[in-house]
Amino acid sequence: MKQKVFSKLNELYEEMVEIRRHLHMHPELSFEEHQTAKFIAEYQSKLGLEVRKGVGGMGVIATLHGGKPGKTVAIRADFDALPISEENDVPYKSKNPGVMHACGHDAHTAIALGMAKALVEYKEELEGTIVFIHQHAEEQDPGGAIAMIEDGALDGVDVIFATHMENYIPVNTISHSNEYIFGSSDDFVIDIKGVGGHAAFPHDTTDVIAIGSQLVNNLHQIVSRKVDPLKSAVLTIGSFRAGSKANVISGMGRLEGTVRTFDKDVRQQMHDWIQQITEHTCKAFGADFDVNYQFGYPATLNDRTMNQLLVNAAMDVLPEDNIKEEPPTMGAEDFSYFLEHRPGTYFFTGSANEDKGFIYPYHHPKFDIDERALLNGSKVMSSAIFDYWKQYNIK
Amino acid sequence: MKQKVFSKLNELYEEMVEIRRHLHMHPELSFEEHQTAKFIAEYQSKLGLEVRKGVGGMGVIATLHGGKPGKTVAIRADFDALPISEENDVPYKSKNPGVMHACGHDAHTAIALGMAKALVEYKEELEGTIVFIHQHAEEQDPGGAIAMIEDGALDGVDVIFATHMENYIPVNTISHSNEYIFGSSDDFVIDIKGVGGHAAFPHDTTDVIAIGSQLVNNLHQIVSRKVDPLKSAVLTIGSFRAGSKANVISGMGRLEGTVRTFDKDVRQQMHDWIQQITEHTCKAFGADFDVNYQFGYPATLNDRTMNQLLVNAAMDVLPEDNIKEEPPTMGAEDFSYFLEHRPGTYFFTGSANEDKGFIYPYHHPKFDIDERALLNGSKVMSSAIFDYWKQYNIK
Amino acid sequence: MKQKVFSKLNELYEEMVEIRRHLHMHPELSFEEHQTAKFIAEYQSKLGLEVRKGVGGMGVIATLHGGKPGKTVAIRADFDALPISEENDVPYKSKNPGVMHACGHDAHTAIALGMAKALVEYKEELEGTIVFIHQHAEEQDPGGAIAMIEDGALDGVDVIFATHMENYIPVNTISHSNEYIFGSSDDFVIDIKGVGGHAAFPHDTTDVIAIGSQLVNNLHQIVSRKVDPLKSAVLTIGSFRAGSKANVISGMGRLEGTVRTFDKDVRQQMHDWIQQITEHTCKAFGADFDVNYQFGYPATLNDRTMNQLLVNAAMDVLPEDNIKEEPPTMGAEDFSYFLEHRPGTYFFTGSANEDKGFIYPYHHPKFDIDERALLNGSKVMSSAIFDYWKQYNIK
Amino acid sequence: MKQKVFSKLNELYEEMVEIRRHLHMHPELSFEEHQTAKFIAEYQSKLGLEVRKGVGGMGVIATLHGGKPGKTVAIRADFDALPISEENDVPYKSKNPGVMHACGHDAHTAIALGMAKALVEYKEELEGTIVFIHQHAEEQDPGGAIAMIEDGALDGVDVIFATHMENYIPVNTISHSNEYIFGSSDDFVIDIKGVGGHAAFPHDTTDVIAIGSQLVNNLHQIVSRKVDPLKSAVLTIGSFRAGSKANVISGMGRLEGTVRTFDKDVRQQMHDWIQQITEHTCKAFGADFDVNYQFGYPATLNDRTMNQLLVNAAMDVLPEDNIKEEPPTMGAEDFSYFLEHRPGTYFFTGSANEDKGFIYPYHHPKFDIDERALLNGSKVMSSAIFDYWKQYNIK
Repeated sequence: MKQKVFSKLNELYEEMVEIRRHLHMHPELSFEEHQTAKFIAEYQSKLGLEVRKGVGGMGVIATLHGGKPGKTVAIRADFDALPISEENDVPYKSKNPGVMHACGHDAHTAIALGMAKALVEYKEELEGTIVFIHQHAEEQDPGGAIAMIEDGALDGVDVIFATHMENYIPVNTISHSNEYIFGSSDDFVIDIKGVGGHAAFPHDTTDVIAIGSQLVNNLHQIVSRKVDPLKSAVLTIGSFRAGSKANVISGMGRLEGTVRTFDKDVRQQMHDWIQQITEHTCKAFGADFDVNYQFGYPATLNDRTMNQLLVNAAMDVLPEDNIKEEPPTMGAEDFSYFLEHRPGTYFFTGSANEDKGFIYPYHHPKFDIDERALLNGSKVMSSAIFDYWKQYNIK
Repeated sequence: MKQKVFSKLNELYEEMVEIRRHLHMHPELSFEEHQTAKFIAEYQSKLGLEVRKGVGGMGVIATLHGGKPGKTVAIRADFDALPISEENDVPYKSKNPGVMHACGHDAHTAIALGMAKALVEYKEELEGTIVFIHQHAEEQDPGGAIAMIEDGALDGVDVIFATHMENYIPVNTISHSNEYIFGSSDDFVIDIKGVGGHAAFPHDTTDVIAIGSQLVNNLHQIVSRKVDPLKSAVLTIGSFRAGSKANVISGMGRLEGTVRTFDKDVRQQMHDWIQQITEHTCKAFGADFDVNYQFGYPATLNDRTMNQLLVNAAMDVLPEDNIKEEPPTMGAEDFSYFLEHRPGTYFFTGSANEDKGFIYPYHHPKFDIDERALLNGSKVMSSAIFDYWKQYNIK
Repeated sequence: MKQKVFSKLNELYEEMVEIRRHLHMHPELSFEEHQTAKFIAEYQSKLGLEVRKGVGGMGVIATLHGGKPGKTVAIRADFDALPISEENDVPYKSKNPGVMHACGHDAHTAIALGMAKALVEYKEELEGTIVFIHQHAEEQDPGGAIAMIEDGALDGVDVIFATHMENYIPVNTISHSNEYIFGSSDDFVIDIKGVGGHAAFPHDTTDVIAIGSQLVNNLHQIVSRKVDPLKSAVLTIGSFRAGSKANVISGMGRLEGTVRTFDKDVRQQMHDWIQQITEHTCKAFGADFDVNYQFGYPATLNDRTMNQLLVNAAMDVLPEDNIKEEPPTMGAEDFSYFLEHRPGTYFFTGSANEDKGFIYPYHHPKFDIDERALLNGSKVMSSAIFDYWKQYNIK
Repeated sequence: MKQKVFSKLNELYEEMVEIRRHLHMHPELSFEEHQTAKFIAEYQSKLGLEVRKGVGGMGVIATLHGGKPGKTVAIRADFDALPISEENDVPYKSKNPGVMHACGHDAHTAIALGMAKALVEYKEELEGTIVFIHQHAEEQDPGGAIAMIEDGALDGVDVIFATHMENYIPVNTISHSNEYIFGSSDDFVIDIKGVGGHAAFPHDTTDVIAIGSQLVNNLHQIVSRKVDPLKSAVLTIGSFRAGSKANVISGMGRLEGTVRTFDKDVRQQMHDWIQQITEHTCKAFGADFDVNYQFGYPATLNDRTMNQLLVNAAMDVLPEDNIKEEPPTMGAEDFSYFLEHRPGTYFFTGSANEDKGFIYPYHHPKFDIDERALLNGSKVMSSAIFDYWKQYNIK
């Protein structure tokens, strides 16, 4: 059965490439993916899948009911693009100025649609249900995942898989993690409000630069003193802006920063310490303050068992040496929300090819992929579906 | 003799007001005071004084040779204006948009011209020489004083006096100091050059915000730990600008600050410590740096004996209670250069009048003065000239 | 064969307990373990093993040559005690005042000797060689391991195993790690040398407390800014001592601290940054300094494959649920040196028993163990030996 | 009259030396000066002065009623010694081991007694009253001055003078100040209470060394940012003691420091900022704290007019060039309390003599004086008494 699907995917390779390039030429920004959603819905409808549109906003859910009873596997593919001006000189270059599929979501969607077309062929023999969760707005907080889940995207789903193009590893490889694959990413803005005045009369002022500098130091003690050394956390102040003249003490300063963690408790602790340290550092010197803390996506924690299942399934597609466990990255993904509700796993499908110049990382205006990744991604996830049914369907 | 001059000045009061208002209507920026210099030179020439133009740039020197031999006393009056838009609604409002005599230099000039006209009347009886040093460009570094001195402004001068309008004290009062009356004012710009990068990979970067914050703290230890507590010094960081996004570590940060001192040694030490602490704070964390330190005007140190002479002379003009010693201010004046070469003193002539709304400090767009200050200033300095001759001329 | 050895060990349980208690009563400090070494050597000699004494100092190596050809497995057991006064009220209490086997090395030795006696019984059937590495001086830097290795302790050895008593987990359990099980541990002393003086004249001094405080802050930025967030590092300043009177500025201050890491590169970076930051923080303010940095034991990195082999072997001794992978601890062990030269693994044998009061951690004056740990430890390592031969001996 | 008293003092020189040496041999610690007080009281009684003992504790007040009506002048002389072991090898060396007149209070007392004996000679001619305030316990907080004032020491007194031996200036000179001559001196102890623990688990602790270091930095911002740069203040942390081992995080740390100021408002602000900054720096990181702030002696502020009177009076004793105004020192004196209630002044009587080895500053175990200072001190104050009566007695 697996082999039949793999063959079918081989046949569909050109079509997947075509889909990917079509989407690449017509990228749409997060929360504005009207045409893309329509395209997906029509494609899946034409295949005969049960399609629900407008899920949680722009999301599309396409369900393929197998001919036999069994568990329900979800494949998630995101489909929004980025506000980046493409710098590739290719026939399928973005036709939407300033917008670009620079994160491979066009490929993710092509993989899902290719899988749908390959699998629907063998519909009667499928021993369970496959739900394609086409998610909008992964790139922009709060993301589409939460809204789609609230709108029932995971109803009836037993397990969920997803992949992402990755130019840090060559095509025909995958990388994975048994635990965290992405961190959480939270941003904050701290305004320090003092009393401005003349540089020569500091005692009549509340010097926000002196206070902000102490605050930066104090905040950097959180990671070194307050986080379990066996756990990971980053706190970075990316921006410090206060005052504009050498001889005037400014009444206002702003720090902007970001927090990256994996562990939930550590994440909350970072927030709590930032609040506490900001409050008291400002109060120590008599300044007012305002902390605007935005929790972004949580960490993406793969289910170890499901990841092992996927890794084993991948060995039917790629040589064992081409499948590597890697440490997590401190980027963030709203696939994390799906994994908070269902077991599943997220992995990287290698898409780099030095010879062809596919070397730029995602979010780069020259990002492009070796499209054979479409085939690898679709085969690995298909393989995982069958293995999952084999192991988890009640006999 | 003194009384005769005072009477003459009383007579000339309306003319001094007229001169001041004329200048007020036609303000010129530092180093661009062509018309003002011309006006002064013509006025003094017409009085019969020996006039030298273009001294050190735009400066004008007018010499009144008394009929009898004696010491040479200089009266310094600055005549440039500021890039400020006047907000006063008066008939003599600035006609030069965006430029304003907001620091009283129009009054200082009127005082000097009034004194010249009053004193020239008694030329034959004068027991020495009076040199009117009309200085351009006091408001803008490097100032006109240095150039005028280099161009011989102090040649033959034995002592020098100057006054400034002051709205912190009422008209008919003066304030003075036996020691420092102004501080020195030096500015610096520190660029910290690190290695930028992603907020989640601080170890691959050299974080200029973290380093800059330590630097701010370290610099603030100079005043608290390295300056003699019996001496005064201010170090203020007026501007800290680095980075623009929460999740990017910037490769560049800039601090701008100012240093105010009185004592010469302390002034030099501040510079030296700023250099040393910046160098090593940056090196501690592996950052490059650049310190651009600009020494501005030195501190203005009155000669105690000459100040006492002036204070005593002032008692012939104003009641003793209206003459007060005050602590110095941490502003700066290039009259300091004259006092580095000759004994002399600088004092404040009260020009405020609450009832009439003359309450705004200099450099304020609503700055204006009670013009009776013209009479007080000219009388006090005239009185000082006669007292000086009396005490210091060789009998 | 395994079962026969397990049975033999069961028989020898009382003797192992006796050995452990004998050693417990006669503890000797690191590098002074004359009687202990003699006891071990005589015991092993009497069993008929080939014994080499004085290896790398006090070490003893006893070799059991099996009757059949095969790989050589080493079992390492340390045998020194600690300068702690025992507070247990037991018949086998330390007879050496102020010295105590508070770290279970008595048990480790009893395990090794019990294993020797059990295995020598089946000498002819053994398919390889077993080397018992009885190591002195684990507790005290530089430790006995380095010297024993330099003296040939690992000559001919193919793999090495060791265990440690652990009261954080109950008897009849073991805990292990596929990677690091211990960190590295390095200590440093920083002396800051300033110029002392009167509290009221800070400008005449170099204030070591102000400088030391900046140094503490700066050092704490290493972990937060200079270490890969995915890797672990701790820098702790455990002691800050400077000055003794409120109104005197001290000329000398001392910081003492410790650094814990796993990764070798991170370890070296910590050292380098501490040197660099100390140098420049002191130079910033004109202080002299002295950094005395002592590298202690490196991190103990288990071989993943050998650890999995041991874990599988342990399943023949204990239920699967009693065998747990645990995160590493940031203590340190000189077994790390053996693992730098040979594959192998180190695991913890549970020895706690709440009901019996065996709850105190090692290095506690009331540390004691549930002696059934002797049986578990000896069986698990014996089981590992046979599994190793089975898998790795050339057939 | 003045000259007669000066002559009489010349005659009494040997006796003053004798008194001083007697007291020097029998020093008594603050609040324990029983024999000294007795000696003084008996001496003054014998002269015929009205003596009150036990004033505010150990104080003695001796009143010399002049034969004519007039104002009352007080001369204050302190008489306690220090817990210092004398290292001088002189016939009049301290006979009380560990106690020494290392601050010249023996000389101050000899001056007062010599003055009494000289002036009583001319009792009938004196145009007012002289009160000798012999004060105990100047060296030890809270000092004897407060208690003596509360016990009526200043009742009826119009003006008060005092002097102090000074080895920074040679014998036959005096130094004085028209304003502050001493600062205030306040001490504080800050205990930081955290949660101790293992160096490798900082997140389970509250690290008092990290917090204490931030606190030191924060406290040093008070002087640089919160004090008027034209005013003086010192904050010194003289002692930082926390932890004793490199690898243990201590639960307790202690900072001890001192604050020196002149201005009353600045003094209070220093206290307030120390409280506020300590509270919030500790709260920022979750530590408890305890600030024990002890206000010591306030600043000693001479009355300008009385100081000028004394300076003029001194010119009858010493050449004008030997009388210098000096900046204040940041030591402290409880004579400040007398000056809070009455006009008066405090000056230094030079007592150094390099040739004779009288070069050690007070509080040094080798402190000793050129005894001719006794004559100068007594003459200057006698001279001031007569000048005061001359100017201020109602005619």
